[in-house]
Amino acid sequence: MADKKLILVCNDDGITAPGIRNLIEVAREFGDVVVVAPDKPQSAMGHAITINSTLRVHPMRSDGILEYACSGTPVDCIKLAVNKILHRKPDLLVSGINHGSNASINVIYSGTMSAAMEGAMEGIPSIGFSLLDHSIDADFSVAKHYARIIINQALNDQMPAGICLNVNIPNVSTEMIQGIKVCRQARANWEEEFDERKDPNGKPYYWLTGVFKNFDEGVDTDIWALENNYVSIVPCQFDVTAHKSLEHYKNWELNV
Amino acid sequence: MADKKLILVCNDDGITAPGIRNLIEVAREFGDVVVVAPDKPQSAMGHAITINSTLRVHPMRSDGILEYACSGTPVDCIKLAVNKILHRKPDLLVSGINHGSNASINVIYSGTMSAAMEGAMEGIPSIGFSLLDHSIDADFSVAKHYARIIINQALNDQMPAGICLNVNIPNVSTEMIQGIKVCRQARANWEEEFDERKDPNGKPYYWLTGVFKNFDEGVDTDIWALENNYVSIVPCQFDVTAHKSLEHYKNWELNV
Repeated sequence: MADKKLILVCNDDGITAPGIRNLIEVAREFGDVVVVAPDKPQSAMGHAITINSTLRVHPMRSDGILEYACSGTPVDCIKLAVNKILHRKPDLLVSGINHGSNASINVIYSGTMSAAMEGAMEGIPSIGFSLLDHSIDADFSVAKHYARIIINQALNDQMPAGICLNVNIPNVSTEMIQGIKVCRQARANWEEEFDERKDPNGKPYYWLTGVFKNFDEGVDTDIWALENNYVSIVPCQFDVTAHKSLEHYKNWELNV
Repeated sequence: MADKKLILVCNDDGITAPGIRNLIEVAREFGDVVVVAPDKPQSAMGHAITINSTLRVHPMRSDGILEYACSGTPVDCIKLAVNKILHRKPDLLVSGINHGSNASINVIYSGTMSAAMEGAMEGIPSIGFSLLDHSIDADFSVAKHYARIIINQALNDQMPAGICLNVNIPNVSTEMIQGIKVCRQARANWEEEFDERKDPNGKPYYWLTGVFKNFDEGVDTDIWALENNYVSIVPCQFDVTAHKSLEHYKNWELNV
């Protein structure tokens, strides 16, 4: 039993979402699973943490697995898991399976990927999984198949320290999938459109909506891979220094 | 008037915080200022956006400057400013002055820096400023002096596209400051300590606290610069691809 793997599972759609239920089923094939996940949807929370209010953790048990529903953000869940709930550092952290794409610039907004990034910051091999289907009735069978392949490899490989993986799975049948491709993050953006409405008192309020715009035609990008029915893997880091531009700024005449 | 600069100001401590009041004073020396900032503290919100609830924007006017208090996160403020409030793309976005450090790994959690990052994603030259003093009574005179120098340079230079600046200012007197240093993000971490308490019903709840741990002794890091009384500038990017590890993962045997 000494070498039984400990796997921490999180997400941002909330602990009852079908995506995390499917990911738990895969993770338990590989070892002991502990789930620490938000007690409600926390999509698009980015790397938010809870510092001005309190956190609650509700232990529960589901089908023999220890699960904890947390009132905070996905990153709060990881911090609580590592520092308060688990008795040792997990061998792997998996986050998701997210309902919807976290490819390209979505990685910045995603709570699913922020949980994985926080895992990497804590020195835990970490992977976020996302299926390109927002629906509550999404079919996770293809995503589970590829999650199984990638988790198996991650547990049998030394992942570089401080790097997590952003895995996105196209919403097509197994026969359509062309394979798995390691990619870079495509340069893309959201063009926002605010839906302006009036409340019953006639005062305006807004809903944030938008259209995803890809400016990057590179065949080495995650967007290209997904559009061509590949599962995409982007290794991600938390050093956001723009190393290539350091020289530009060192030429600024600032010390006058 | 055709070449009068348009400067967008945001922060994460809220529109009434002394830090943003000081930054507005500096920004108005350089052009027309529009403020779009959270109506309440939004520290540590990272790159969170509001997708499951509505947004309110309250126009106000302060000392001749257009200001808008927004119910959302710092990133919501930038999206609203660019897509709903401003009639043209601003020449510069400045965020802060934050009450407390955003050096090293804090850049990932910071709402101040997420606003600047969102600006960079929108193609706006963007700078986040932070003073290493959390106090409401902080003295911003040194921070204002260096903000003025850096804003002046940014408006007179072509900043590389898609890059924003993370500027941190030590909490010492002008005479103590050694200069301005362009740096990389130090590799550091927060070691969390959850303060566990009992509510009046005897049920536990938690406060997130922690200790900042620097693992990086590089003299080219922002932490070194700040510890040695330099103002630090780290250029930051939103491509989080770990380019150096792409080859490692391309060697994984996944397509079997």
